[in-house]
Amino acid sequence: MNPAARSALIQAAGAENFSDGQEDRLLYSYDATGKSYPPEAVVRGVEVEQIARVLAAASQHRVPVVPRGAGSGQSGGSLPVDGGLVLNLAGMDRILKVDPADHVAVVQPGVITADLQRAAEARGLFYPPDPASVEFCTVGGNAAENSGGLRAVKYGVTRDYVLALQAVLPDGRVLRTGRSTMKTVVGYDLTRLLVGSEGTLAVMTELTLRLLPKPEAKATVSALFHELETAAQAVQAVLMSGITPAALEFIDSQSLGAVNAHAGLGLPPEAEAMVLIDVDGAPEVVAGQARRLARVLEEGGGRQVRLALDPAEAAELWRARRSMGPAMYNLAPNKLNEDVVVPLGRLAQAIRAIHAIGQRRGVLIPTFGHAGDGNLHVNVMYDASDPEQNRQAHQAVTDVFAQVLKVGGSLSGEHGVGNAKLGYVGAELDPVAMELMRGIKRLFDPAGILNPHKAVPTPDILA
Amino acid sequence: MNPAARSALIQAAGAENFSDGQEDRLLYSYDATGKSYPPEAVVRGVEVEQIARVLAAASQHRVPVVPRGAGSGQSGGSLPVDGGLVLNLAGMDRILKVDPADHVAVVQPGVITADLQRAAEARGLFYPPDPASVEFCTVGGNAAENSGGLRAVKYGVTRDYVLALQAVLPDGRVLRTGRSTMKTVVGYDLTRLLVGSEGTLAVMTELTLRLLPKPEAKATVSALFHELETAAQAVQAVLMSGITPAALEFIDSQSLGAVNAHAGLGLPPEAEAMVLIDVDGAPEVVAGQARRLARVLEEGGGRQVRLALDPAEAAELWRARRSMGPAMYNLAPNKLNEDVVVPLGRLAQAIRAIHAIGQRRGVLIPTFGHAGDGNLHVNVMYDASDPEQNRQAHQAVTDVFAQVLKVGGSLSGEHGVGNAKLGYVGAELDPVAMELMRGIKRLFDPAGILNPHKAVPTPDILA
Repeated sequence: MNPAARSALIQAAGAENFSDGQEDRLLYSYDATGKSYPPEAVVRGVEVEQIARVLAAASQHRVPVVPRGAGSGQSGGSLPVDGGLVLNLAGMDRILKVDPADHVAVVQPGVITADLQRAAEARGLFYPPDPASVEFCTVGGNAAENSGGLRAVKYGVTRDYVLALQAVLPDGRVLRTGRSTMKTVVGYDLTRLLVGSEGTLAVMTELTLRLLPKPEAKATVSALFHELETAAQAVQAVLMSGITPAALEFIDSQSLGAVNAHAGLGLPPEAEAMVLIDVDGAPEVVAGQARRLARVLEEGGGRQVRLALDPAEAAELWRARRSMGPAMYNLAPNKLNEDVVVPLGRLAQAIRAIHAIGQRRGVLIPTFGHAGDGNLHVNVMYDASDPEQNRQAHQAVTDVFAQVLKVGGSLSGEHGVGNAKLGYVGAELDPVAMELMRGIKRLFDPAGILNPHKAVPTPDILA
Repeated sequence: MNPAARSALIQAAGAENFSDGQEDRLLYSYDATGKSYPPEAVVRGVEVEQIARVLAAASQHRVPVVPRGAGSGQSGGSLPVDGGLVLNLAGMDRILKVDPADHVAVVQPGVITADLQRAAEARGLFYPPDPASVEFCTVGGNAAENSGGLRAVKYGVTRDYVLALQAVLPDGRVLRTGRSTMKTVVGYDLTRLLVGSEGTLAVMTELTLRLLPKPEAKATVSALFHELETAAQAVQAVLMSGITPAALEFIDSQSLGAVNAHAGLGLPPEAEAMVLIDVDGAPEVVAGQARRLARVLEEGGGRQVRLALDPAEAAELWRARRSMGPAMYNLAPNKLNEDVVVPLGRLAQAIRAIHAIGQRRGVLIPTFGHAGDGNLHVNVMYDASDPEQNRQAHQAVTDVFAQVLKVGGSLSGEHGVGNAKLGYVGAELDPVAMELMRGIKRLFDPAGILNPHKAVPTPDILA
């Protein structure tokens, strides 16, 4: 970083919030993808006016700025791929308000999602988005990536809970979008344009979130299936039952094999799929709903259909799903983890095609995920130390993407594009739509400093 | 219209789809607001390539284009306030697909919303958005205005059901946004930027919509309250019950008075509010949920709590709410109808303040609406032939808007800004956000031909 830029940034940030020491540069070079791009410096964001000053200085000196929450993203969204500045927002972690009458919370971006959930629950309320990283990811990061989670099938994704934002533009202007109301149709929907924009348009400094009443009770149902197609049909039957499950998960044979070996679940080897369902709501109705869905699964060919009405039994049924992460590494030492989405009716077809790709490429591709919204976690397992397997594994990912697009699916349901999928999104996005996206990027960030080379390919990348 | 523009438009549209006859110019000068702005010509949209040609010609000749569905909007969104061309999309009314496996429908913009609902129901599916005009409004108009309705409290608004769009830009380029999947986080969310943009950014030519499973059963609960504040507290208790109602409506004393006189409902004159609730879902659970909510209302001070488990009884309970439109005119011959939103906890306070404004201005302001999401329909009743009352009534609307903004509310929850509220939105929107909105408008519509003077104030209006 040139000395003029460095001294402007130190002045803008406050010296105590600026570091370009070796340690910080290493620490903030990583995210959950395991890749490393050392930034030139790290600034700790402490309040909106300071962030405005930092961004204005960075714009003036053309220093890239990468906003960062917990760095738990799965698509490299917080990697400083162009160097520059990491703007660390993890310290802005105050829950400013939980209002039970208005059903809203106002929080800073660095609040850990699970902390918000607990604060809401203490007032009888509920913040539904629940990415797997809920205990360490931040609300700001969730909003930047539009994160989902298990409960999306019933409750939607982060976008559906962000009512209003305070954010800072790259030139230092502060803006407010939305209202603290459940509805508004005044003006263009900038709130939902910023949600999911992966920190490329503005830096969120305050979020107003919708809260729901807390469901009082929960029940879980699980079933095994001897045939993938039967399981997919049972998923459709559950969706058509008139009861909306709070989670509707699907685990394929390869994932079951891995988790069976890892956690000793004693599952029958002939099982081709497991379906896991949560229902939640008022105590009087939850047990009846769970029994009805158990019947739907049984009538749909489910074996070993099990029902859990208390938390301990439910945890037991969820053990297979929860052990999935570590269990995968029983199959191979390395993993390429993609979260594609297919139309709801294409579940079985997509998984069969993914397995065929694995066979062709000589790798296992255990696949599980949110059957209720067609969002599949595809895990290409391989040994990176074997150059040929390495090549085949990466080729398998490209094959999976091609297959997903062929059936009308999308390359990401909840992880985002980041830099990981940037080279692929041109195959999904309409060229005119992409031109408009680039125009929006230029409108918000004419200097192009904010999280460059993320979310939307810019012409120099396409070239 | 100058002859060159006229002949270019005729060539683009096809002569059989172009009219500048007196009758058509009168017919398409109106919408549901009752205001009249005659366009210079009307073009019948028939397919995407023709619309692309028409828009390109209009851009070239700087002719304003106002897309129009059924003209049932409440904010003047389809009024050709600058003259130019009305682009009538009502004839593009084909339901192209209802897919029960993928849970999506693909429709043209001119499809009547209730027709889509019936087509979905015939396949066991459900399209939730239900504006009061559902039997004559169009899906394209609903998407342009991001319409809501009674069921928004449980099911959300039109925005939550639009998965993907085909649309034409003012320069004639065709774009596709979104995917036919329940989730996607690839690229900026242009779909939700276009939804609610009131036809000012692009003309929607095809919509891919999310469908839900059809709830099999429904039940209704109603209660009267002798005090507004008690009723508002009961609404909060319902929202916190763990059961999400499919409708949660509120009717104030002045509305009850009007409807009582009009429909002879025999309501006790001391009633200050009525609360009406629908629950829907699986048959086994709906009756239990309705009974539980009846208990919640009773324990919250509700009188004459009634429960209806069959459609005929339910219709009887809904009679007061459904008679509201015509009943209002028992109070005065003219109505200014505004759909403001307040934070959920401000319901009683807002209605008290609105009544006080009415008293001060010498007009009745019956108020009812969607208590479950804070969206109130405020009806300023007055006699337009009395100049002083006319003035006071319009002043009352301004007072109501000021009051709504003071408690953190929004000037429109489902009707949109159109041209009706254009002069007011500067008081709600953040100035930096408004600048960005104007930038987005310029990006999509550099010639400024598409539905000018709607949704977002442009500098010449503010000046």
